[in-house]
Amino acid sequence: MQLPSRLIESAVDQMASLPGIGRRTALRLVLHMLARDEERVSDFAESMVAMRQGVKPCTTCHNPTEDGVCNICANPHRDSSTLCVVEDIRDLLALESVGEYRGLYHILGGVISPMDGVGPVDLTVESLVTRVQSTEVKEVILALPASMEGDTTAFYLAKRIQAHDILLTTIARGVSVGEALQYADEATLSSSLLNRLPYKG
Amino acid sequence: MQLPSRLIESAVDQMASLPGIGRRTALRLVLHMLARDEERVSDFAESMVAMRQGVKPCTTCHNPTEDGVCNICANPHRDSSTLCVVEDIRDLLALESVGEYRGLYHILGGVISPMDGVGPVDLTVESLVTRVQSTEVKEVILALPASMEGDTTAFYLAKRIQAHDILLTTIARGVSVGEALQYADEATLSSSLLNRLPYKG
Repeated sequence: MQLPSRLIESAVDQMASLPGIGRRTALRLVLHMLARDEERVSDFAESMVAMRQGVKPCTTCHNPTEDGVCNICANPHRDSSTLCVVEDIRDLLALESVGEYRGLYHILGGVISPMDGVGPVDLTVESLVTRVQSTEVKEVILALPASMEGDTTAFYLAKRIQAHDILLTTIARGVSVGEALQYADEATLSSSLLNRLPYKG
Repeated sequence: MQLPSRLIESAVDQMASLPGIGRRTALRLVLHMLARDEERVSDFAESMVAMRQGVKPCTTCHNPTEDGVCNICANPHRDSSTLCVVEDIRDLLALESVGEYRGLYHILGGVISPMDGVGPVDLTVESLVTRVQSTEVKEVILALPASMEGDTTAFYLAKRIQAHDILLTTIARGVSVGEALQYADEATLSSSLLNRLPYKG
């Protein structure tokens, strides 16, 4: 599709460079931008730049923050003897929204995936190992995705961490609360049976 | 979901203000931005601002352009006696991509929709009427959507234009090329029968 202006062309290219946004959607978004007040478009642009410049990974857990150390790591009421290792900040947000977990986090920034060329050096593995060695950590919970890549990453981390005298756990895999047994997949059902718990009436 | 930083919060708000982008998608896009080089984020932001500042509607047909008059209106090889009225620049792009039409366009910028508070004054109707009066236009093709709003708009435009001695046409509605008859909807089938053409072997 031949766009009527080089500026629109380049804005569409930029929009379409975002993940999950195709050229058709990009054009729709750009035309929407074009119909907005100039000021609102500047606000949009400035907000992206300010976010990119002002937000840095927490020096301890790699959670994005504006303050060097994130508000979870800086909170004295959190239990610093437990670390929960997650792939992504969205996993952290999901866990935090439950409000159950009182320990700290470590954001890996991905999982090991040879197919995508992601190895341990691309993740925050070394900083996790250093953290486990140098602080009073007693338990590391691996909350990684239940995929080949997640399992590989868990295996690798276990090997790197186990040397230190630390309890290593993973989150439970089983039938979701509210899910009918008959609709659960085989791997989930199998895990829910293997890891069955004493009944607490 | 409590985001870890005010800057991320505001970037997500901005992304989610785009049509069809929910807060979850907005967060995904913003975290993708956060993982990009600072320079690429500036490029993205600048491209939106430059587009909004540099692109203006063509003074004749309202097609977005950087040059005052768009390249279709400025092209001396196009037939200026025919105007095709479309709702939106995307409709123009679709028609242009066929490469069949050699006339000029007029972009309404929407259709009359009392439900959404869009009246004739919100569209480029007056500029269309002026154009039809003052130039050598012989035919106006209404290529508006086949919806209640599109029909209302066509009816309104017809009333405004018919006074001038001009051929008023609409694009054909019928069974799509390649579409099986049995899957066409009733309105389309009915239109394809009513507007049947002499067979040209």
